[in-house]
Formats: sequence, C-alpha cells, structure tokens
Amino acid sequence: MDTMDILRQLAIIIVAAKFMGLVARKLRAPQVAGAIVAGLIIGPSLLGWVGSSDFLSGMAEIGVIMLMFTAGLETNMQQLRRTGVKATLIACMGVFVPLIGGTLLFMGFYGFAEPGSDAFYRALFIGTVLTATSVSITVQTLRELGKLSSELGTTIVSAAIIDDVIGIIVLTVVIGFKDPTTSIPGVILNTVLFFVFAGVVGYVTYMIFKKFDKRWPHTRRIPILSLALAFALAYIAEEFFGVADITGAYVAGIILSSLQDSTYISRKMDINSYMLFGPVFFCSIGLQTNIREVNSTILLFSLGFVIVGLLTKIAGCGLMAHILGIRGYDSLKVGVGMMTRGEVALIVAQRGMTVGMLDEAYFTSVILLIIVSSILTPIILKLLYAKETGVADASEQGDMIA
Amino acid sequence: MDTMDILRQLAIIIVAAKFMGLVARKLRAPQVAGAIVAGLIIGPSLLGWVGSSDFLSGMAEIGVIMLMFTAGLETNMQQLRRTGVKATLIACMGVFVPLIGGTLLFMGFYGFAEPGSDAFYRALFIGTVLTATSVSITVQTLRELGKLSSELGTTIVSAAIIDDVIGIIVLTVVIGFKDPTTSIPGVILNTVLFFVFAGVVGYVTYMIFKKFDKRWPHTRRIPILSLALAFALAYIAEEFFGVADITGAYVAGIILSSLQDSTYISRKMDINSYMLFGPVFFCSIGLQTNIREVNSTILLFSLGFVIVGLLTKIAGCGLMAHILGIRGYDSLKVGVGMMTRGEVALIVAQRGMTVGMLDEAYFTSVILLIIVSSILTPIILKLLYAKETGVADASEQGDMIA
Repeated sequence: MDTMDILRQLAIIIVAAKFMGLVARKLRAPQVAGAIVAGLIIGPSLLGWVGSSDFLSGMAEIGVIMLMFTAGLETNMQQLRRTGVKATLIACMGVFVPLIGGTLLFMGFYGFAEPGSDAFYRALFIGTVLTATSVSITVQTLRELGKLSSELGTTIVSAAIIDDVIGIIVLTVVIGFKDPTTSIPGVILNTVLFFVFAGVVGYVTYMIFKKFDKRWPHTRRIPILSLALAFALAYIAEEFFGVADITGAYVAGIILSSLQDSTYISRKMDINSYMLFGPVFFCSIGLQTNIREVNSTILLFSLGFVIVGLLTKIAGCGLMAHILGIRGYDSLKVGVGMMTRGEVALIVAQRGMTVGMLDEAYFTSVILLIIVSSILTPIILKLLYAKETGVADASEQGDMIA
Repeated sequence: MDTMDILRQLAIIIVAAKFMGLVARKLRAPQVAGAIVAGLIIGPSLLGWVGSSDFLSGMAEIGVIMLMFTAGLETNMQQLRRTGVKATLIACMGVFVPLIGGTLLFMGFYGFAEPGSDAFYRALFIGTVLTATSVSITVQTLRELGKLSSELGTTIVSAAIIDDVIGIIVLTVVIGFKDPTTSIPGVILNTVLFFVFAGVVGYVTYMIFKKFDKRWPHTRRIPILSLALAFALAYIAEEFFGVADITGAYVAGIILSSLQDSTYISRKMDINSYMLFGPVFFCSIGLQTNIREVNSTILLFSLGFVIVGLLTKIAGCGLMAHILGIRGYDSLKVGVGMMTRGEVALIVAQRGMTVGMLDEAYFTSVILLIIVSSILTPIILKLLYAKETGVADASEQGDMIA
C-alpha cells in the first residue's frame, strides 16, 4: 500500500468511525459498535473503499497495545488483589465450558469422533478457538459506562486476562497432541517465568519511574517512556515467553498503575487512542471480513458456532460468578462481559490452520463470532447497566471515539 | 515486517530518540538533531537494531502530515498576508540559485555538457534535486525557540511552502524535456486549480467547523475531524493535482487556523506527534542511510553536493531577504532556515531515477545532504537566535520530543 492510499484510507476510517459512532450513540448503542459497523460499511463487504492491509493491521495492533496498556494503568491494584481468586475461578469455567461446547458442536455437525482420532482433534480445536476472551471491547464499553475501575469491572477484566493465559495453555496442549515438539510443562513454565520476569523488571522499572515522577512530574518523558515500556513488555512477552503481547502491555500498565502520574500518562495515551489508533482498530474488525463470501453451509455452522460461543461463556462465567456470590444482573454482566472474542481467537485459528487442525472455511465463523460478540456485548452490557441505574447515556469523558 | 518486530522497533525508536534528544539538549543542540542521530545509531549505519521498512515509512509520513498540519494551524494569517510577496521573492531565488549551482557542480565534476545533450539534462537534474526546501526541521526548530509565529518565522515557512510549489514545477519542467507526455502549462494549471479547489473547499469546511466549534466546543469530534481533513487534503493535493501532500496538509491547517478551537486542535495534534509519530519521523531520516556503503568517489561528489546545496540556499534566500530589507542576522536566518532538505528532495531524486535522469549512486548524496542540513540548520539557527537574545535553551512547551 503506497503512502497516498494510507492517507486516503485513514481519512475515510476516521470520518466513518466518528460518524457511525455518533449514530450508534443516538441509537443508545455504544460507539464501539458504530466503529465496527463503519468498518463493515467502508470495507469489502459493502462499499470496498478500504481494504485490510499490513499497514492498517500494524496500526490496529498498536491500538490494541495502547488499549490494554491503558486498562492496566487504570487498574485498581487493591481491587485486583481482592478479586484475584474470584477472577481465576471465573476464567477457568470460561475456558472449560466453551471448550466442551465447541467440541460437541463440531461432533453434532459431523458425527461423533473417537477420542484420539483426527476428527476428534479437529472437534477439540473448534472448542479451543472458543476459549480466549478478548477483553478490549468490554474494557472500552465499561470505560464508556464509567464502570472500568468498579469491583465488577476489575473482576471481568482480571478474569479475561487470566482466561487468555489459560486459553493459550489449552491451545498449546491441544496442538501438543499433534506436534511432539511442544511440551505442556514447558508452556506452563514459560508462563510462570514471564510473570516472575515481569515482577522483577516491573519492580526495577517502577522504582526508576517513581524517581522520574518525583523529579520531573508532568513532563513528556514520562508518558513517552511509559509507551516504550508497553511496547517492550508486549514484545518480550510474546517473543521470549510465548505469552500474548496484549498480556504484556496490560502488565506494563499494572506496573505503572501506582505512580502519582498514572492518570497523566493515561490521559496522554487516551488522546493518542481516540484520535487515530482506536478508530483504526475497531474499524479493522469490520474490515477483516467480506460478508459476500459466506455460503449457506458455512452460514449454518457459523450460526451454531456464534450461539454456542456466546452462550457457553455466559453460562460458564455467569454460573461461576453466581456460585461466588455475585448476584442478579451482576453475574449476567460477568458472563456477557466475558463473551467477546477478538484478535486472540483469530491468532488461535491461524495457528490451527498452520498445523492443519482447522480448515480455512471456519475462519469466517471466527470472524462472524468476533463481529457479533463485539456488537452484542456492549449493547447488552449497556442495557444491563441501564436496567439498574436508568441511565444508558455514555459520558464524553473516557470514551474512545467520542 | 511482522507485528512483534513493529513493537520491538517502536520501543527502541522511542527510547533512543528521547535519550539522544535529551543529550542534544544538554549539549545546547536541538532535540530534533538528537533524534536524527539516534536513527543513525540504531539504524544500519551502526547498531543495525532497526531497519527502514514500509510500516515505519508510513508512520513517518503520518508524522510529516501532522507536523505540516500543525504548522498550518499555528499560522498567523494576517502575518502571512503581510509576508506573502516577500516569501514568494525569497522562494524564487531559493529555487533559482541552487538549480544553477547544482548544474555547474555536476559539470565541474564530469566536464561541460552541451545544452540539449543527455549529460546536460543529468546536470540539470542534480540542480533540480537541490531546489526543494523541506520546512519540517526548520518549523520544529522555530517552534522549539518559540519563533514559529513570529514575522520572520512566518516568512521562512511561507517561503519554504512556495519554494516547494516552484520546485515541483521545475521538476515537472525538467522531466518534461525528456518525457513529452507532461506539459508545463498543464502543471501550472493543476497547481492553480488546486489552490482554487482548496479555497472553495476550505471556505465550506471552515463554515462547517465554525458551527461545530460553536455548538460543541472542546469536544473530541473537532480534533478528530480536523485530522481527517488534513489527511484528505494531503491525499487530494498529490493524487488529483500533483501538488505535494505536505502542501495539502499545510493548507488544511491554514483553513482551520482562524477557528476559536485552533489551539485546542493543535494541542491534541502535538500530543500525537511527540508521543510516537515525531520520534519515528526524525529517527527514520537517520535510518534511511547506511554510512558504511559510502565510497571515496561518491563521498567527494557528495561533499561538493552538500556544500553547494547549503551555500546556494543561504546565498540565494539570504541575499533576496537582504534586498527586501531584512537586515543583519535576520537575513542569514532566512537563508539558513531555507537550507534544509528532506523527503521532497528524496521524492524528486526517486522520480529522476524512474525516468533515467539520475543514477542510484547520487541517492547517497541526497541522503547525506538531508542529514547534514537537518543537523546543521537547527544548530546554526539556534546559535543565530542565541547571539541575539543570549538564550539558547529550548522551552519544554511546543517541543516535539521533549
């Protein structure tokens, strides 16, 4: 893609995302859903003005990193400590139930498969794709609603982060059945090592930043170096420990969340997000699919895939939340907040294709699940919160694409 | 370049640019020069940690657009009207003298060439590469010094913008000698048409933004849609009128410069610039070259090319400034401010290679001129201003990479 095309596409994305975001707000839907629909409209599905490209993917990736970093920055550590056990239990059920559900769905469509057979692993892989929650849409919606740093918000975000880690372990285990070069203990060891590494580096970095913070408060070097830390930890997590880059960015945010200047950093990050990277990221979800290519067989399977994908997360996480004493609408909010899928599901699907455990045709199902869940999650979450408070309007403050 | 590489390289660029920027400031040199040197250090010339890539070029281009847009936004229109005639005359001499100088340099090296011969056009093309001033470094330095919106600052920036337009006309004329498909009147017509188009679109856009400004002051939609306007005009300028994209972005800034919220927009743009796009752009100038590949023949020619390139701009623009009544150090500041070359010179060189009027070897000379002029201009400008006021320190405010 040449430079002129970049400028043209960015101009279209910014205007379309903003316009559809405002339309969505008028319709009492979240602006994030508007931006995704904007991507569908301007993308190959409808107008074809903008196509997905390496450049836009790179920009979207930076957007995700910034989003997760800001989520980490805004984490209330005391609440995370309080919600840690709950979050882990919710995450476990949020991995287990969709894994079983996806496996059974595949067998329901193509017949029962003997454990150990090739078809069995294919079925199991469909389940695996369903495991990883993508927290970014939920984070965004919770932020729009001003609930991100509430106890429930922290529980959902923590659960989604832990869910990612467990999901990646499950992926490695399932692939490990086919490929004898990866070892399950090795994966677990790497994950543990990353958190040990992050703890040590985090402590040192925190002490350095604390000095900066004291000596040069509110100077540009603080948000600039914070952003570099987010990029660096995201890179190190994925490259050296096999942990998702967004987890690294989130951890970077948590490391700096106790700084005096953490709100200063988060405000600067926010401006970078809503001006350019946010719209590009949310639009790119809509851009990545072409509705026209979908045929009836794929559509039928995809329909089941989407329904199973959403319900198993709601049932698994919601039930566990209920067991843990989160009552009424709140347990439903946990389930709905955990049902979003995103780039991690795409990455899992891609790895499945690489090792020959997933056919390309199912990629459409994954993209449909991402779109449907990304649009439904914020709408339902907003309705659930509105039922409680009677206010469904988003405030301009803290709103990614306001 | 894959996603992990993007994150790794961005982390390195941000830290290196910030660190070298602070070192430069300690040494009383401008931070911009520090960021360029950072690019040389981390790039293929020395450490090789970061290479130039399509993704980084795209990011750098967005950085240039933002920079030129902000320069336009901060333009004092009343002063531009006052300096318009002066700026045009300075720009004309700033194109004419380097054009002659470059042509003579080539003939001095390779022997006199008969007008109309192939060698003559090659000589003329070397002159053409020297015509286009890149104002971005100067804009940055003037902003660091707090002189961007002074009368002298406006004169220099206006002259550099007009210089670009004239430079592109010269390029088209020179290429036109070889290629009969481009016509000189056509080029001039296109340029005039662009400014007519920008005037009409600008008036309509300004009226719409003025309403937005009144109805929703200080909301996110204002800087977001402004950025979209900058991208759109940059694209339209280059794609439909053959005018450089940065000229389009500058015009977009001028259109919005009379808005009440123009400082609000410019502050948001500034945060986007200094966090990520600014460091990437300035580093990428250093990244684009590999000092190791330079041999003695190229070095000798390049040395002459750099000296002629710098002196002809200083002489041409400085002399005209002096004739126009700008006295003492101020006329020298105009000459020095106009001597920076940048991406436009690279684009001109690339077009020359495409049509076979420039050999690849001279590309190194162009890059060297860009680096030397980018480093020298801010240092000399700062010294000239320091001689006057006795203060050479940059303020944190308005400083791209502080």
